[in-house]
Amino acid sequence: MNINAEIISVGTEILLGRLINTNASYLSGRFAEMGVNVFYHSVVGDNPSRLSTALEAALRRSDIVVTTGGLGPTVDDITIGAISKTFSRPLVFNKNIAAGIKNYFGKKRVKMHPYVLRQAYVPKGARAFRNSVGTAPACVMACGKKTVIALPGPPGELVPAFERFVIPYIKERHKTGFVILTRAVRAAGAAESAVNRKIKNILAMDGAVKAGIYSRPGEVDIALTAKAESEKKALALIKKSEKKILRALGKKVYGFDSDTLEYAVGKRLLKKGLVLSTAESCTGGLLASRITDIPGSSRYFEKGVITYSDKSKIKELGVSEKIIKAHGAVSRPTARAMAEGLLEKSDSDIALALTGIAGPSGGTRRKPVGLVYIAAARKTKAKKTKCIERRFTGNRASVKRQAASAALDLLRNTL
Amino acid sequence: MNINAEIISVGTEILLGRLINTNASYLSGRFAEMGVNVFYHSVVGDNPSRLSTALEAALRRSDIVVTTGGLGPTVDDITIGAISKTFSRPLVFNKNIAAGIKNYFGKKRVKMHPYVLRQAYVPKGARAFRNSVGTAPACVMACGKKTVIALPGPPGELVPAFERFVIPYIKERHKTGFVILTRAVRAAGAAESAVNRKIKNILAMDGAVKAGIYSRPGEVDIALTAKAESEKKALALIKKSEKKILRALGKKVYGFDSDTLEYAVGKRLLKKGLVLSTAESCTGGLLASRITDIPGSSRYFEKGVITYSDKSKIKELGVSEKIIKAHGAVSRPTARAMAEGLLEKSDSDIALALTGIAGPSGGTRRKPVGLVYIAAARKTKAKKTKCIERRFTGNRASVKRQAASAALDLLRNTL
Repeated sequence: MNINAEIISVGTEILLGRLINTNASYLSGRFAEMGVNVFYHSVVGDNPSRLSTALEAALRRSDIVVTTGGLGPTVDDITIGAISKTFSRPLVFNKNIAAGIKNYFGKKRVKMHPYVLRQAYVPKGARAFRNSVGTAPACVMACGKKTVIALPGPPGELVPAFERFVIPYIKERHKTGFVILTRAVRAAGAAESAVNRKIKNILAMDGAVKAGIYSRPGEVDIALTAKAESEKKALALIKKSEKKILRALGKKVYGFDSDTLEYAVGKRLLKKGLVLSTAESCTGGLLASRITDIPGSSRYFEKGVITYSDKSKIKELGVSEKIIKAHGAVSRPTARAMAEGLLEKSDSDIALALTGIAGPSGGTRRKPVGLVYIAAARKTKAKKTKCIERRFTGNRASVKRQAASAALDLLRNTL
Repeated sequence: MNINAEIISVGTEILLGRLINTNASYLSGRFAEMGVNVFYHSVVGDNPSRLSTALEAALRRSDIVVTTGGLGPTVDDITIGAISKTFSRPLVFNKNIAAGIKNYFGKKRVKMHPYVLRQAYVPKGARAFRNSVGTAPACVMACGKKTVIALPGPPGELVPAFERFVIPYIKERHKTGFVILTRAVRAAGAAESAVNRKIKNILAMDGAVKAGIYSRPGEVDIALTAKAESEKKALALIKKSEKKILRALGKKVYGFDSDTLEYAVGKRLLKKGLVLSTAESCTGGLLASRITDIPGSSRYFEKGVITYSDKSKIKELGVSEKIIKAHGAVSRPTARAMAEGLLEKSDSDIALALTGIAGPSGGTRRKPVGLVYIAAARKTKAKKTKCIERRFTGNRASVKRQAASAALDLLRNTL
């Protein structure tokens, strides 16, 4: 059965452009996974009559209407009042919610203003859920065969309420008869167009699985989506396509779903018991920062140096002045010498070095902005230092990001 | 006169939660600045009849209706067709737009498929603007006293079209009689609540200027908004409040609008002709990466070291083993020794050092996750090394970010 939902976000802050409506995006993604169609998003300000009109129109055309925001204790918080009026459901005091609010303030050892208890009033016949993070309760309310759901605005409160209470409620009440599952394959070291070329035939053949290709600086994601009667069947469909994609892309694939390149690299270093050090020029510490974003990275990351000047490359890494003079600081021989020098001056098994021109200035005709050399040296493979050249486009931040990704990818291929 | 606008975003990708609707946020912010009220946002999929219904409802209640997206050359791109049908304006071929599209492909030296020229058809009576970045033209169309505007979906195409063509057009056609101006004061080294306490009386008195206080990790923004008949008058109102806020917050203020802490610090280093080096532990390179995000930072940044292990602190920075044994790697004496050691081993005038526990594990009762020590040593002020202790909450990424901000702020106060 086709079930349609729509999302009404309440908040003048959104209409003023001060807040981006990420809630609508999150909820839409979750509805899609449940097999529920979302045909409309709308945003209205903190204005009861406009919200009321929007609620009426929404309930006429959709099975499920979700509001976000406007559940707080102040006079600006109009959502519950508007739902109560629009659907003629008087507000009733909910003891359980009131106890939850009192408990929240007790735990924080903060005095509670009595007006906060305004949030314990919910429309008659609605089920309310205690907020585990804040005070505004989420509500679900049956309107004939349709459902109205009110969620708190802060994403940190909305997400747990939706996951814990609303999803089970919707699944029980609105049976769609199918699920939609999405899984992402994450690849690095290939352009979006190259990935597209390699997998387009696979995607064309597997009609049951839809795919989207999305690029991020230095990386490409392939999102696979399948619709089936059960989660198990949907997963089986995805796995079938995924297998072919993995074969086509080979070592370009580093992980799935929320995996990051730094996580993939860290896992391999840990598994092989290898220790890493980094030397950066143009990325200015971004590479090391990404590596150390992973909890427990101290087990495989020894040290990083950021040698921004020629002098520090010579002093810190033992790069010979001759090499820099002959080839320039941004050159293959310098990158190589940085990695090999760092390896010698550290106790690490692998040294990763980067030198390049992040821009916006500093480029020349022969060495343009975006030119980057990356070298990886290994203790066990002396004289076999790998070195690559890359030419990135984009602004300074984008060049830094792409260069760090390329370095992580070179490291991954070295392991 | 009150002018109302509303935004209809067209795109199934948004309704599936795969794309966040940042265009609506950007346009709303720009409308607010022009003194135009935005009362509704809505999103519809790539479905002509639903878009048509949304367009009709929007033009009934608003003076300006803006659509975003759906202007491309494929069959999924339905916006121009829907506008044409809804408002009974047949499509006519626009030679100028066609020439622009041909020119675009010529420059890229890519063969143009003839169907791309579908984008050169615009509703009769509409003005179309060449797209400087892509191929889909932006259109504006008068409907009686009201206006319908169609903008391309990619933000990189939408923003220049809106800034260059649409804003002047709206200002000419819909005179609001006033402007709204916003300016942000950016502060660091103080909590949101402390900033609020210090400035709330000022804000209460200056009724003409509205203020919002927004916190980011380790920083606080105060956004001042004024409404007046002219830009000059609005700016004068803001400047009046701003002056009082600057007096109340003193050195906590580091800049305005899009200034960043790293930019403010870099500017001062450059002005004073001082050179900086950094030593990081828990931030893992994030501090150096932020410093080197600023173009030209190579003029004042010498080098950075990331000493993740005790051994590297001893070897790279000359921290004595005794200090680490007696006080621990995360301690005031270690931070101090790191900064002073780095200063000695570099040619810099200032050394900034950081040591802490980023989490999620590694904390103890006495030294919890989020504990960070930051030291700043100066060549000209030997033995006068400044050292601060901070206790941050939040996840690993947030602790890293707050610690780097606190270090930049300490450096700023040292200069």
